[in-house]
Amino acid sequence: MKLSELGEFGFIRRLRQQVSDGPGVRLGIGDDCAALELPPGELLLTTTDLLIEQVHFRRDWTDPRSLGRKSVAVNISDIAAMGGTPRHLFLGLGIPAATEAEELEAFMAGFIEAAAEYGAALVGGDTCRSAGPLLISVTAQGSVPAEELVRRGGARPGDAIYVSGTLGDSALALDRLLAGAEPDPWLARRHHDPTARSGLGRALAAARLPSAMIDLSDGLLADLGHVLEASGVGARVELGLVPLSPAFRAALAAAPGLVELALAGGEDYELLFTLDPRHEPQLQRLAAEVGVPLTRVGRIVSPEEGLQILDLQGHPYRPTRLGFNHFQPGA
Amino acid sequence: MKLSELGEFGFIRRLRQQVSDGPGVRLGIGDDCAALELPPGELLLTTTDLLIEQVHFRRDWTDPRSLGRKSVAVNISDIAAMGGTPRHLFLGLGIPAATEAEELEAFMAGFIEAAAEYGAALVGGDTCRSAGPLLISVTAQGSVPAEELVRRGGARPGDAIYVSGTLGDSALALDRLLAGAEPDPWLARRHHDPTARSGLGRALAAARLPSAMIDLSDGLLADLGHVLEASGVGARVELGLVPLSPAFRAALAAAPGLVELALAGGEDYELLFTLDPRHEPQLQRLAAEVGVPLTRVGRIVSPEEGLQILDLQGHPYRPTRLGFNHFQPGA
Repeated sequence: MKLSELGEFGFIRRLRQQVSDGPGVRLGIGDDCAALELPPGELLLTTTDLLIEQVHFRRDWTDPRSLGRKSVAVNISDIAAMGGTPRHLFLGLGIPAATEAEELEAFMAGFIEAAAEYGAALVGGDTCRSAGPLLISVTAQGSVPAEELVRRGGARPGDAIYVSGTLGDSALALDRLLAGAEPDPWLARRHHDPTARSGLGRALAAARLPSAMIDLSDGLLADLGHVLEASGVGARVELGLVPLSPAFRAALAAAPGLVELALAGGEDYELLFTLDPRHEPQLQRLAAEVGVPLTRVGRIVSPEEGLQILDLQGHPYRPTRLGFNHFQPGA
Repeated sequence: MKLSELGEFGFIRRLRQQVSDGPGVRLGIGDDCAALELPPGELLLTTTDLLIEQVHFRRDWTDPRSLGRKSVAVNISDIAAMGGTPRHLFLGLGIPAATEAEELEAFMAGFIEAAAEYGAALVGGDTCRSAGPLLISVTAQGSVPAEELVRRGGARPGDAIYVSGTLGDSALALDRLLAGAEPDPWLARRHHDPTARSGLGRALAAARLPSAMIDLSDGLLADLGHVLEASGVGARVELGLVPLSPAFRAALAAAPGLVELALAGGEDYELLFTLDPRHEPQLQRLAAEVGVPLTRVGRIVSPEEGLQILDLQGHPYRPTRLGFNHFQPGA
């Protein structure tokens, strides 16, 4: 069935039957606004992301269910980076008229499934037709006790720099797709269906461990750069410490230049955070509890030293690019 | 200057210099999320809207400053319809690479100017390039004391139905533009730069007058239809009572069929609300204080009677269409 046969209000009606509101939702889908309650005394966190067909995704590369899941994860990742608990999601969709209702339902099934996994409720949105590409706009709200909010600007010289998981997997999958090849299924999943580190971000914040935190969406160097700018510090990153997956290492063995994808590829949706090295033993216990590998990749230094990357021999390494910028020529 | 020369982060940096955060904003633009405080005990209201070039607007018909202002107003209108106070705005922009930085700055100037007029702060967003049309995604947050929240579902038989302002002006301007004609400047402004009835919605809610309220974005009949559905009631609307502007009346005298634009044209961004007729004297005092004309257009009836429209002779009137549906064939 084409969406034009179901109609806008038919689509919204079907959607309302699929979602459950959850705690704190006074009014979900179906009025002019959602009306929501937050835990008393907690700060409201809000983030918004656009995903545009042909810019952020291609429908011939991803299945709609994964696309729905990813639309949730990339936003929840920002809530996680502030130490927050995800609560509410809003979805704006600009839909080409020829879209099959089944494709949209698979997208929505993935969206609602992922929202439930992170404990967030879909409580509002907007649907309209698009004359061009499929457009996805997601706004996520979470909350955090004010004293546990983690910002980008708190890194201090001497702090250790940690990242979760492994880097470059998503960018390597994209690199393969752009070359017309089929990526390794595990890598493909890291690209099409990433997991936001929601539990980890919350646990780190609740333990008051990070001095600064950010999620890795633009690539390690670009996002670390944001932390350095906000904190007024420099950093030394050791290439040999950057955590890589077995699939990534296998590709790297054949093509050493791929290391750049782990530094500047983007879309890792891992967390990068800094902490006082005295807290590292506590951090290791927390990592074991949460079940997410955490790896120290470098150290915060004085602002005069800037951002340095050291290769395996301890020599300065110069990456050819620093990260993703949407308006760069050729980006 | 093209946006590609300024760059994504250059654009965001410029933007940060232009916005001021205002009360309750712990963290505005520049971290993974905005971190916000709401007045204790108030509900969080949130709404989101997509505006897509060629679907919702044409850049050859509107100037960028008005487009920025309208992007704010259409969202604030939803906050007003719940009786809320506007607080925060989030802006997602998908920007064609060839866009002039000057055009974008005019858009942003309009956006920030309108936000300030409604007392809301721009505190976050997302910018990326668009391979196709200009895409605007706005999320607005407001708050309302829980006991003053106005929903769609509270209309009761016997309630009077009121609308603010005049209806059909925006649709008439669009009708002219679609016909290749230049609309009357006042009508054009009602279309390109509408005013959300923020002060009115808040005052009505604070006085606990409306039993139900909605903003008129899809047209009188469609939006009244949402109220009837949510409330489980019917309504009788008198065509002769629908408030029309002098410019609209002048056009109507030449082409009586245009009356449909006042019933089903959409984009009025006026408020429709219902209230117990015993409160009408109090309502008239409030209207005078707020300075917004309010007009009774009909009455809520039992659900069996459905939605009836009566013409000037009191006979049933059948409109040819009921309102805007984004996925209707030919919509």
